[in-house]
Amino acid sequence: MLITGISQLVTNFSGVPGDLGIIRDAAVVITDDTIAWVGPASDIPRIHRDAEVFDVGGRAALPGFVDAHTHLVFAGDRSDEFARRLRGESYEQILAGGGGIHSTVAATRAASLLQLTAVSLARAQRMLRSGTTTVEVKSGYGLTTDDEVRILQVAEGLQASGISVVPTFLGAHVPDRGADRATYVDLVIDEMLPAAASHAEFCDVFCDRGAFTVDDSRRILGAAAGHGLGIRMHAEQLAHTGGAALAAELGVASADHLDHATPEDAAALASAGVVATLLPASSFSMRSPQAPGRMLWDAGVTVALATDCNPGTSNVESMPLVIALACLEMGMTPEEAVWAATLGGAKSLQLTDRGRVASGSLADLVILDAPSYEHIPYRPGTDLVSRVMKAGEWVG
Amino acid sequence: MLITGISQLVTNFSGVPGDLGIIRDAAVVITDDTIAWVGPASDIPRIHRDAEVFDVGGRAALPGFVDAHTHLVFAGDRSDEFARRLRGESYEQILAGGGGIHSTVAATRAASLLQLTAVSLARAQRMLRSGTTTVEVKSGYGLTTDDEVRILQVAEGLQASGISVVPTFLGAHVPDRGADRATYVDLVIDEMLPAAASHAEFCDVFCDRGAFTVDDSRRILGAAAGHGLGIRMHAEQLAHTGGAALAAELGVASADHLDHATPEDAAALASAGVVATLLPASSFSMRSPQAPGRMLWDAGVTVALATDCNPGTSNVESMPLVIALACLEMGMTPEEAVWAATLGGAKSLQLTDRGRVASGSLADLVILDAPSYEHIPYRPGTDLVSRVMKAGEWVG
Repeated sequence: MLITGISQLVTNFSGVPGDLGIIRDAAVVITDDTIAWVGPASDIPRIHRDAEVFDVGGRAALPGFVDAHTHLVFAGDRSDEFARRLRGESYEQILAGGGGIHSTVAATRAASLLQLTAVSLARAQRMLRSGTTTVEVKSGYGLTTDDEVRILQVAEGLQASGISVVPTFLGAHVPDRGADRATYVDLVIDEMLPAAASHAEFCDVFCDRGAFTVDDSRRILGAAAGHGLGIRMHAEQLAHTGGAALAAELGVASADHLDHATPEDAAALASAGVVATLLPASSFSMRSPQAPGRMLWDAGVTVALATDCNPGTSNVESMPLVIALACLEMGMTPEEAVWAATLGGAKSLQLTDRGRVASGSLADLVILDAPSYEHIPYRPGTDLVSRVMKAGEWVG
Repeated sequence: MLITGISQLVTNFSGVPGDLGIIRDAAVVITDDTIAWVGPASDIPRIHRDAEVFDVGGRAALPGFVDAHTHLVFAGDRSDEFARRLRGESYEQILAGGGGIHSTVAATRAASLLQLTAVSLARAQRMLRSGTTTVEVKSGYGLTTDDEVRILQVAEGLQASGISVVPTFLGAHVPDRGADRATYVDLVIDEMLPAAASHAEFCDVFCDRGAFTVDDSRRILGAAAGHGLGIRMHAEQLAHTGGAALAAELGVASADHLDHATPEDAAALASAGVVATLLPASSFSMRSPQAPGRMLWDAGVTVALATDCNPGTSNVESMPLVIALACLEMGMTPEEAVWAATLGGAKSLQLTDRGRVASGSLADLVILDAPSYEHIPYRPGTDLVSRVMKAGEWVG
């Protein structure tokens, strides 16, 4: 297929953070699920001129969004808790009162496989429709071996929507209600990890105040690596506990949140080549200060953006909104934010076959109802996604 | 028509700010363009039981949004200027460099009537689809008598989309490029107002640093009242210049923006019965601190929420996003924000026939793809509007 009429194409060709590699009046040739050729419409090689033509009519195009941090497999609804927080209660008060994450764990365990799949699939479909072509999905609302594995199986099944799923085992989200933390860490390592490893590509740990310590995280991630899993971390979200330094020490794929990261953390992450996956919708929804995205970027850390889609602290599915928040609340430029939401996300997930519009990449594309990527942060709240292509097929 | 299956109905019945008058398992009877009966589904009067039934399937319903402050009739695109601001330039630098509002004035004057109508109608249609059933539309990108009148005529024509339009004359937006301010004020009073009065319901003035003074505003609004127009003001957006005090002195319908309003201003507005129309998407898009919405509300001021839809400082069409921003950035509760976006907006525009779901009100309704109004701020960026009814007709 030959796509023409692209007024502005974001290619991310060079791989240099923030360099969008814009081509004006561009064309893209797709063969099966792969991009075969990219360039100015005036230069289409003769060999491709017989292809079926799809004219997008003067719109901007960019790589599909790669949402590298979500908890989208969950049941239940915490809108009431959200409203209570807006009336002044803190997340930790709600947690202490038996609300918070444990209410989602209970609802997720109680949901049938069919119910859990249905609500999660609806989310994945809305995400795909809003331009997300690859989504990372964490477990972490099971907290028993069977429930954790079930969430990873549901995550895998979401690919039926057309979206690519990268499943991550997050048994170490919080200790199960009533469980001793040290005993729970042993359970994660001795029982959950062996059972979950074949259902996941990554292992994540919530290293933070009220969750797991740096030592817990080191043990769990070490064991995960022994099972052949990639490793990643929640770090420095609620307090500064040393997660970013551990992330750099272990050379994890990504350290996520980083609301309380320091310039020293940034230097360590940059030199270790750890991606910083930032979640501005989470701080937005929590009414807490944003992570120092500007500082991290300027320190040379590779930045990704993701939704953190979850029922407690960021019930957000839209990468366009995340891009707007990164610009308007973190001080990123539109170029940086769009790069971080596409190639940055791919780097966070260590996927080398997407995040670019380049020959050989997966044909994952977003066509905007706008002439420029700048419209994404310029027009927050307006649905600007005209069409979505996943692996060579129009899916939305 | 009998609408059933409403799991939660926001009625705003009492008229008390923030009191949503929720009815669970509700039904609504519509006769022509008007609500004939509202109550629990178990209490539907016998006389209405033969009506055509429309079951919304367990969704929440609320009055259509009333967006009481927009500049939606404009041509041109200032995404480039927006991106420059994200790279550090100030609004006033851009203004001084010949960008800013004057580039929109030039583009709006240059657009044909057909072009201007087409782009504006597309905006109105997207707004209607996102739940806005009444929209105020200001002139102010003409700055000559003919161009101002043309914008008001285009605004009136937007009712073809189904949306209700309240046109406002804002010749006093800024002085035309190169014009002496005092001479321009005379032009507004002596020539524009007489020509525009029959095309508008309100007259507005941008009373602020770099625009018009308190004395200019007093003169213009006095003349407008003499032409039988309602009066409203932009006040205290960029700096504190005394606009709110003037608003209270004149008893205008609404004082808008109020980013720099003080507790003394709040007390004056409250006792004068002036509505405060707050525009959180504008401060969000400008990266400036939000208006003190919490303080104004607590001081007893009647608060409305609106998009400020315009190409320079708030290219936002979505009242659901505005509600989320009011909660997450101004500290309003979901109840307050939903009330301010519906009945608050109606009060800002002095419309007594809408903003409620009550017998005798216009049948303007939003049906959510969610069980509760709390989902609007809980799930920002997700399109939760399932259906929209305007004056008894399903329009989206």
